[in-house]
Amino acid sequence: MSEAHAHFHERRVVALCGGVGGAKLAFGLAQKLGENLTVIVNTGDDFEHLGLTICPDIDTVLYTLSGLANRVQGWGRADESWNFMEALAQLGGETWFQLGDRDLALHVERTRALKAGVPLTEFVAETAQRFGISSRILPMCDDPVRTVLDTSEGILPFQRYFVERRCAPKVKKISFQGAEAARPSQSVTDALQSADLGAIVICPSNPYLSVDPLLAVPGLQALVQAAAVPVVAVSPIIQGKAIKGPTTKIMDELGVEVTSAAIAAHYADLIDGLVIDSADSGEGEKLPIPVHAVPTLMSSDEDRVRLAGEVLDFAAMLASIPARQKAASS
Amino acid sequence: MSEAHAHFHERRVVALCGGVGGAKLAFGLAQKLGENLTVIVNTGDDFEHLGLTICPDIDTVLYTLSGLANRVQGWGRADESWNFMEALAQLGGETWFQLGDRDLALHVERTRALKAGVPLTEFVAETAQRFGISSRILPMCDDPVRTVLDTSEGILPFQRYFVERRCAPKVKKISFQGAEAARPSQSVTDALQSADLGAIVICPSNPYLSVDPLLAVPGLQALVQAAAVPVVAVSPIIQGKAIKGPTTKIMDELGVEVTSAAIAAHYADLIDGLVIDSADSGEGEKLPIPVHAVPTLMSSDEDRVRLAGEVLDFAAMLASIPARQKAASS
Repeated sequence: MSEAHAHFHERRVVALCGGVGGAKLAFGLAQKLGENLTVIVNTGDDFEHLGLTICPDIDTVLYTLSGLANRVQGWGRADESWNFMEALAQLGGETWFQLGDRDLALHVERTRALKAGVPLTEFVAETAQRFGISSRILPMCDDPVRTVLDTSEGILPFQRYFVERRCAPKVKKISFQGAEAARPSQSVTDALQSADLGAIVICPSNPYLSVDPLLAVPGLQALVQAAAVPVVAVSPIIQGKAIKGPTTKIMDELGVEVTSAAIAAHYADLIDGLVIDSADSGEGEKLPIPVHAVPTLMSSDEDRVRLAGEVLDFAAMLASIPARQKAASS
Repeated sequence: MSEAHAHFHERRVVALCGGVGGAKLAFGLAQKLGENLTVIVNTGDDFEHLGLTICPDIDTVLYTLSGLANRVQGWGRADESWNFMEALAQLGGETWFQLGDRDLALHVERTRALKAGVPLTEFVAETAQRFGISSRILPMCDDPVRTVLDTSEGILPFQRYFVERRCAPKVKKISFQGAEAARPSQSVTDALQSADLGAIVICPSNPYLSVDPLLAVPGLQALVQAAAVPVVAVSPIIQGKAIKGPTTKIMDELGVEVTSAAIAAHYADLIDGLVIDSADSGEGEKLPIPVHAVPTLMSSDEDRVRLAGEVLDFAAMLASIPARQKAASS
C-alpha cells in the first residue's frame, strides 16, 4: 500500500466531480494529495436565480474541501443563518431554492466578478485560495453549459427538476445546452495534458447528471482518453442502490440496469478500472475491466481518506501493468 | 387645532422627503393621514453596488413607515443580522457599505424586478403594500438620477462621499447626473395635480442632498409651484445646527449661513410657510414668509406625530388666508 501511494507523491491526479457524493471523495483525495490534486467540476447544474449566477457543484466542492460544508444537509455551509430567505418570502420573492445568508456572499461576489469580466476559473481559484484549499478546483469550462431534462412534466432546467420538483418527474432525456459551443479552459487542458499526471479519477457522482455534462464539453473526453495514465471510476452504486440523489431512479427511467456493470458500460470508452463496493464483489468478477472491491460508503472523514487511498493504490497498480489497453493505445 | 386638522381629513397631502430626518416626519404624517398621504422620495442617493440597485432613501422610508426601521443606527432594519457581510469580507468583497441579511432581500428582489422591466414606482408600491403601509410611497422618478459631489478629493458619487468617506471631503458643488433626461412618473404628476390635494410638505431633510435632487427632475418643481395649495417646509436647522448628517458642514462649505433664514431663502420660489424650531422663534420674526415655531426635534413616535399635526395645522391656517401669494398667482 505505502509503496503504491508513493507512486503519486510526486505526480498529479485529476478528479472529475459533481456535487455531494463526488465531493466526499475529492475531500479524501485532497487530504492525500494536497496541491497535487486538481478537481474538475461539473457546471451543468449552474443557473441564474434572482439575478445571481449560482454554481451548486462548484460551491459544494469549495465548501467540502475547506471544511465549511454542512455535513448533515449535504449542501451549503455548516454555520448558516436564513434571515435573507425569511425577508425574501415577506417580499413575495421566489423561495424554492434555499440561499443561506453566508452562502449568498459567494453568489453575489461571483455574479459581480463574472459581470466585470473575470472568468469563472479565475474566481473559483481565488475563492479556493481564500478558503485555504491547496488543491486546485477548476470549473469544467468558462462557457455556460446548462443541463436540461426532458421529463414527464415537459422540459425542465436542472434545478427546477432537482430542487423545486425534488426529482419527481420521470426523466426521458438529458441534454446539455450550450455544450456544443463550449471549450475546456486552458487550465483544464493543461491539467489533463500535464507531464506529471499520474491518474485520472472519476468520482462517484451521478454519471448522467454530474459527469456526462463534463464529457459533453467538446474536447474534454478526448483529453481524458489521450492521457497516458490510468483512468479509474468509483461506482456510485452499492447493492443496486445509490447512496444519495436520483441516480437509481434515473437509471430505471432511462432503462439501464442499476448495477456497477452498467456504470462500467457507461464509461466503457474512458476507464481502465472500476472501484466497486465490497458488497458487490461477486458482480465485479463478471466485468470486462479490472475491478477493485472495497467499502465505498463514505460516512466519516476517515472513510473518505481511506477510499481515496484505495483508489490511488488501484490506479498505481493499473499503471504498473504494461499490457493495459490505455497504455497500448497511447 | 382639531378644526384645522379636519381640513385635511378628506384631502390629500404630498410630502417631499429624503432619508432619516425626513422619514421621521413622514412617519408622523402617515399616522395622521394614512392613505391620504403620498410621500415622494429622493432617489439621487441610489447606486449600483455589488451588482445590486440600492435605494437608501426609499428603503429608509419603507422601513420607517412600516415600523421595521432600526431607530438607533438610523438606517436599515431593527431585527438584523450581518452574516452575509462577514462571509463577503472573507471573500475579499467590498465591505464599506453595510448590507444586513434581511435588508439584502429587498436589494436582490428589487434588482431582479428592475431587470425584468418592472418600474421602480411599481416595485416600491408593491413592497409598501406587503409591509402593511397604507400611505403611498413614490420614487421621485423611474429614471436613474445620481447625486455626484465635486469635492476636495475630486468627483465622488454620493454613497462614496456619504458612507465610505463619512462626509469628510469638502464639498464644492453638487450635481444630479441624469436629471436632465428624467421625468416625474405619472404617479408623481397625478399626486401633485390631484383635485383633492390639500397641502405639500417639504420634510426636514438635507435641502442640498435630499430635496434638491427631487427639484432637479424637470417638471417636478413646476408641479409643486402650480399646485394651488400651501407648500410648507420644515427647517432641519435648530439653533445653527442640523440634528443629523452633514447639512451644517455642507452649508458652511457652500458659503451659506447655517440658519432657518437660509433654508427659507433656498426654498424661496417654492414655499408659503416655514416651520422652525421654537428655540429659533426670534429668528422667525425676521423672515419674509409666515413662520410657525414649534419644537422640531423628533426623538419619539409621539414627537413625530405631534410635529406632523403642527405642520398640518400650519398648512390649514395658510390655506385659510385668502391673500397668500400662492393662491393669488394660481
